[in-house]
Amino acid sequence: MAAIVASPPATAAAVMTQSYVRAAPVYAAEAALAAGEGRVAAVLVNSGQANAGTGRGGVEDCERTVRAVAAAVGCGEENVLVASTGMIGKRFDIGIMERGVPEVIGNVGGGREDGVRAAQAIMTTDLKRKEAAFRGMVNGKEVVVGGMCKGSGMIHPDMATMLAFVTCDAQVERGLWQGIIGRAADRSFNMITVDGDTSTNDVLFGLCHEVKDAGIGGEGVEELEAIVTATCVDLAKQIARDGEGATVLMEVRVTGAASESDARAVARTVAGSSLLKAAVHGRDPNWGRIAAAAGRAGVKVVAETMMVTIGETVLMIDGEPVEYDAAAASGYMKAKAACGEAGYCSEGDTVVIEVGLGMGEATATAWGCDLSKEYVAINSEYST
Amino acid sequence: MAAIVASPPATAAAVMTQSYVRAAPVYAAEAALAAGEGRVAAVLVNSGQANAGTGRGGVEDCERTVRAVAAAVGCGEENVLVASTGMIGKRFDIGIMERGVPEVIGNVGGGREDGVRAAQAIMTTDLKRKEAAFRGMVNGKEVVVGGMCKGSGMIHPDMATMLAFVTCDAQVERGLWQGIIGRAADRSFNMITVDGDTSTNDVLFGLCHEVKDAGIGGEGVEELEAIVTATCVDLAKQIARDGEGATVLMEVRVTGAASESDARAVARTVAGSSLLKAAVHGRDPNWGRIAAAAGRAGVKVVAETMMVTIGETVLMIDGEPVEYDAAAASGYMKAKAACGEAGYCSEGDTVVIEVGLGMGEATATAWGCDLSKEYVAINSEYST
Repeated sequence: MAAIVASPPATAAAVMTQSYVRAAPVYAAEAALAAGEGRVAAVLVNSGQANAGTGRGGVEDCERTVRAVAAAVGCGEENVLVASTGMIGKRFDIGIMERGVPEVIGNVGGGREDGVRAAQAIMTTDLKRKEAAFRGMVNGKEVVVGGMCKGSGMIHPDMATMLAFVTCDAQVERGLWQGIIGRAADRSFNMITVDGDTSTNDVLFGLCHEVKDAGIGGEGVEELEAIVTATCVDLAKQIARDGEGATVLMEVRVTGAASESDARAVARTVAGSSLLKAAVHGRDPNWGRIAAAAGRAGVKVVAETMMVTIGETVLMIDGEPVEYDAAAASGYMKAKAACGEAGYCSEGDTVVIEVGLGMGEATATAWGCDLSKEYVAINSEYST
Repeated sequence: MAAIVASPPATAAAVMTQSYVRAAPVYAAEAALAAGEGRVAAVLVNSGQANAGTGRGGVEDCERTVRAVAAAVGCGEENVLVASTGMIGKRFDIGIMERGVPEVIGNVGGGREDGVRAAQAIMTTDLKRKEAAFRGMVNGKEVVVGGMCKGSGMIHPDMATMLAFVTCDAQVERGLWQGIIGRAADRSFNMITVDGDTSTNDVLFGLCHEVKDAGIGGEGVEELEAIVTATCVDLAKQIARDGEGATVLMEVRVTGAASESDARAVARTVAGSSLLKAAVHGRDPNWGRIAAAAGRAGVKVVAETMMVTIGETVLMIDGEPVEYDAAAASGYMKAKAACGEAGYCSEGDTVVIEVGLGMGEATATAWGCDLSKEYVAINSEYST
């Protein structure tokens, strides 16, 4: 378990899974945000059991957890959000939860190591803990945005994402803040895919402090949105990079689309193609799979104006195949994977795939990862 | 290469890929069907190169192939269909094609072994050749419908399918025949998925003989449609069963949906879930992944009325998890896979998953396969 405590209560914006099968804590968070008008004093996160597919018993478990948190923090139940992650369909041991909550709340601190421990606590099949913080000037004042998230499988967010938490020390009116968080999610968490499976538990909670009249406004909204978006994109890429079984991060840049929604659809479809993901795993510049995925994204594209590149290697121009150095293109992918494995290298760890559509000016970027035998192994053996 | 020759020319119905990136032969077939008013004297099929992503050169290659077939058969170019399958982005050796066409056409015969050789010739990564034939009474007369198809990867048809060819000895008016083929495709090829990737080359061609006034009519249309649908479902299941790396066939039956389109969406989404496919590979009754996939199918479902079963084992009723015998459910999947491996056994080789939605009366069935490490291996190493 991990907790985020805000004193005084923060103003929360939320983006949640669009699935019709949602976990008990997602329903509870939705109700609490409505009842408490977005004032949040504590967020409790547990990993291990998702509390989804758990029926009425799961709803009660969630209510008892909220009650324990409210008592430990000394706030109203409508000021508590819960987020759960883990296996679907099994109830958690509510006794352990109730006994553990006061200890978790009591241990919340503001130090660097507290953040690290929280990000660690919410991991399931994640191999790496995921945190980000960005700093910037908004309306002439310095603002800090921080975030943590978890997720490496069941990742194909639809208007929402895996568990992600973003805090901000700026003062923003609630409606503006919800807009900023929503747009940032659209360009970050909603643009990653690991396996095409949307979760029942996806949530992004953004916390800041609201003021009615004197908060962020004017150009400051755009400035703040840029910092929040940078934080969310950084976190989202960490999820894709740590996709179950992944050995390399894939970035799909779509340019020349007729509209941003077209660009987003093509970028997500290409990044999610199992065949392309397997080819990238084999370091195989199999660009036909890129063009094929672009063609089935559900938006109009024209092969005759399409361009495909992997790294610096151009593979297709105006619908015509190009003679290219397959060994160089393959070597590029190998080098990126090696960079990723090394943890850090100045050359970057990302296989960049660009699809030019030649239909307009709009662009979008999606992130994914390769498909390896380890993905299958992890998900063949997860629940039993 | 393989060829189907019809003398006198047959009446063709076609269902083709809805992708915006389509192979040269798909465009050519569309044009020929329009110019020749659906009269088809020959269908030539080649495997190895898909002739997609091959630009203007690929279009010329296809035109020269059509010309060679028309010359060998002695028919108009508008009476020739070509279908290609294989790698995207490489042109084939047109010299080999032109030299080979007369031989292929000359060898066409009506015997059992000719059909076997044709079904064999069109395979790529397929491990098994795929044929089906059904016989039945239509308007009081016996009718035979036969078919062959290929496909094991890049399978997630959208209003079309991999290469499939269905012939029928009944006489049907062209518009009726197109309707029958279209509806049969919707319930067969459009309900299978291997990897979520739609092909640039998907086609289903149906061939019969048309008569304007004295052909199939009245109740006979439904009778014929049942036979054609049975043929197409049989072929489609063969594709799913032979999915790249698959060890078992998955059948997802959705019942109690508000509409057939809702049922189809849920069935396809569940059958296509990578997480569920991996769980089935691990013989793990991880029903949470079934419920989660049903929830993200894009149509309204309600967890509280949902039921999930694997084989005879009920896992969830009315949104509540059920105590179940995990070893028995796992054993059921193991037994089905063993049956499939053995090639034939009276118990059936299919893992049946049922999702009851409790929203209405509509039903749909989709087919897929498990996701194995071999899928990744095959697709990491395919092109280079």
